[in-house]
Amino acid sequence: MTISESTLRVNDARFREDYERLTLDGATPDGGLNRPALSEAHLAARETFRGMIRQRGLTIREDDAGNLSACHSPSSKTKPVLLLGSHLDSVANGGRFDGTLGIATAFEVIQVLREHYPDIPLEAIDFTDEEGTWVSLLGSRAASGQLTQKDLDHPRGDPEAFQRALEGAGLTSKGILSAARNSKDLHAYLELHIEQGTRLEKSQTDIGIVTGMVGIHMYLVTFGGQANHAGTTPMNERHDAALGASKFCLMVQETITKQFPDCVATVGRMNFSPGAFNIVAGQVTAFMELRTEDSGRAKQLQQALHKVAKHSAKEFDLNVNFQHLESVIERKMDPSIIEALESGALALGLTSRRLPSLAGHDAQSMALLCPSGLIFVPSVGGFSHSSREYTHWNDCVKGANVLLNAAKQLAASLK
Amino acid sequence: MTISESTLRVNDARFREDYERLTLDGATPDGGLNRPALSEAHLAARETFRGMIRQRGLTIREDDAGNLSACHSPSSKTKPVLLLGSHLDSVANGGRFDGTLGIATAFEVIQVLREHYPDIPLEAIDFTDEEGTWVSLLGSRAASGQLTQKDLDHPRGDPEAFQRALEGAGLTSKGILSAARNSKDLHAYLELHIEQGTRLEKSQTDIGIVTGMVGIHMYLVTFGGQANHAGTTPMNERHDAALGASKFCLMVQETITKQFPDCVATVGRMNFSPGAFNIVAGQVTAFMELRTEDSGRAKQLQQALHKVAKHSAKEFDLNVNFQHLESVIERKMDPSIIEALESGALALGLTSRRLPSLAGHDAQSMALLCPSGLIFVPSVGGFSHSSREYTHWNDCVKGANVLLNAAKQLAASLK
Repeated sequence: MTISESTLRVNDARFREDYERLTLDGATPDGGLNRPALSEAHLAARETFRGMIRQRGLTIREDDAGNLSACHSPSSKTKPVLLLGSHLDSVANGGRFDGTLGIATAFEVIQVLREHYPDIPLEAIDFTDEEGTWVSLLGSRAASGQLTQKDLDHPRGDPEAFQRALEGAGLTSKGILSAARNSKDLHAYLELHIEQGTRLEKSQTDIGIVTGMVGIHMYLVTFGGQANHAGTTPMNERHDAALGASKFCLMVQETITKQFPDCVATVGRMNFSPGAFNIVAGQVTAFMELRTEDSGRAKQLQQALHKVAKHSAKEFDLNVNFQHLESVIERKMDPSIIEALESGALALGLTSRRLPSLAGHDAQSMALLCPSGLIFVPSVGGFSHSSREYTHWNDCVKGANVLLNAAKQLAASLK
Repeated sequence: MTISESTLRVNDARFREDYERLTLDGATPDGGLNRPALSEAHLAARETFRGMIRQRGLTIREDDAGNLSACHSPSSKTKPVLLLGSHLDSVANGGRFDGTLGIATAFEVIQVLREHYPDIPLEAIDFTDEEGTWVSLLGSRAASGQLTQKDLDHPRGDPEAFQRALEGAGLTSKGILSAARNSKDLHAYLELHIEQGTRLEKSQTDIGIVTGMVGIHMYLVTFGGQANHAGTTPMNERHDAALGASKFCLMVQETITKQFPDCVATVGRMNFSPGAFNIVAGQVTAFMELRTEDSGRAKQLQQALHKVAKHSAKEFDLNVNFQHLESVIERKMDPSIIEALESGALALGLTSRRLPSLAGHDAQSMALLCPSGLIFVPSVGGFSHSSREYTHWNDCVKGANVLLNAAKQLAASLK
């Protein structure tokens, strides 16, 4: 039996040790991970990764978007690179599987592969700011040439703080915008991620094979009333922006449940101005996002929610500004990669199902550059972006083995 | 006709000039005033006031709570001081009449009085942090000996920032707690303030004579759910704290309107945690206060709102913590001072009415120390704690003249 006819297996002990090592920087007392992109903890995690790359005799590749890779580069440079990756950054007070497990998997998979296919160029890449602390999918969008100056000029936080964070990481806007890679240098992109939902757990499926990512649409919905004294202003003379925003928040939930059960929408934050006990709120801004697989449906939902915002404002004698901030459009994964992943699972005797991703992932950026695929492993209870995020280690290993065997299949086609 | 038989008048031009001068520091482009207690702008306004005191040949008195006074101190020190005052601090982005008009009035009144009663000790006092940027009525509660270490340990903002602010103003907690004045040194306390409501304007009354202040009760109502991914968590599996807090905010309004029309309640702020587009809110804290003249009613309302909070939490499968933070209890003004103020208005041919104050004022602290009184002048449209706050100058002069003639009457009783 030649190697291409048997299934490969990751080195469980090494894989686990590497994963644990990558979860140390920014670890929180409750078992979560707090390393927003470009924070001290995030940069420390990258330094840890650099150390691990050197230790294993792989080479370090860093681009001008801060993306950090472990590379195996055979002397003959004629073949395109087989790329695997994910991200080391987390949301604020997030979990220890989201992104980091994907990096540990990519790192392990290229180590096993180079033992068997020393002639294939391999790379395990950590993309910058997948979570969008500053700019969603910054690193993978830069690598795939989709990022614009406008994206960098309008980060989610304070633009000056973003500039300081870039400086602290030795990055520049100009550099980020010139970090695009060449399509012909890449053979394929593969990623493993936790599901962040309960579809796999509920259907007792080992592996989720992602068909594509939902579109994500972000809005700032600002209700304007009149700041006034909370003691002396009679209730019936108030223009209380808090009431309009609260009504809107409840109506978003109701609209989704009753009319758009195929979509999700969230008000994750409201900013009150002036924001004090003793002042009727003059302005409240709701941070809302909605997700759906279908761009036509997104348009319908946006219209429905805009209407809801206007009604909520009118009920409390307020004005409202419904501002579309940013969209990440839906994207399909490559059919041949989907098949390679499915046959990888099958060869290992694992169950798999095709499903759309309800979250954004670096694979959607890379899909514009080369054939790309993404698999999910089950999340216990579906907890995500929280310290309660958890995946059984056994499931992590299953996922890594599927990625490894799909990668093997793709590598074989390069021989 | 002796001076005690005629009415006195303030010097309109001087009064106006002084008032304008006191509104320069922290002036905002929209015609408001931004000088939270102990901020740079607030300390600048105090420096301006010091300069004005010196210029008029009055003496400066400063106590360990930062309270700053203009004093006229006759050599014979047997008589207690006739005190008038208000505050130079404002809420964030407040108006230019709240507090500052009271200081200009007190300053003008003691200047007219000393011309006519040179033997009476007079004092115009600017109290620290009436608005409670850090601690409500800090200066007047310190002067009247009501402040405790606990109050100073739990400021509204960040305790460390409060310490830095105190240091910046040359104040210490220890000093503040030793700033209590002696009751026998004070003859009476008088204050002029804008109404911050529309009762005077609507009834076309010149002067409001305050019978007492409502109690103010502050609460932090925290809804606890589960921070989770805003894409992958199905709507029906969420524990979204934003929904409980929003429902509560709407129900507070409804409870007041339907069951407690004699009270007011406000949710002036909500803090979301983690607070991002892409995370279902795990925790939302509503900043609520309620006001009523009657402490029994306050208790009933608190119970009703606690129940509302529990219902709101239950509806969205959340927990809730209903925390009473601080109360400023209701207080009555002195009957003899009320009569002196009424006769002052009458002697000037002005209309007046008795009314409760729906806002807190330094006079309620001073009422524990000496006979105290407070008058209101009309607020156009009732705007308050906002740059739209406005009182016609003519009404300011009327109010100052009423305070002057009531002060004259009280001074005469000291002769």
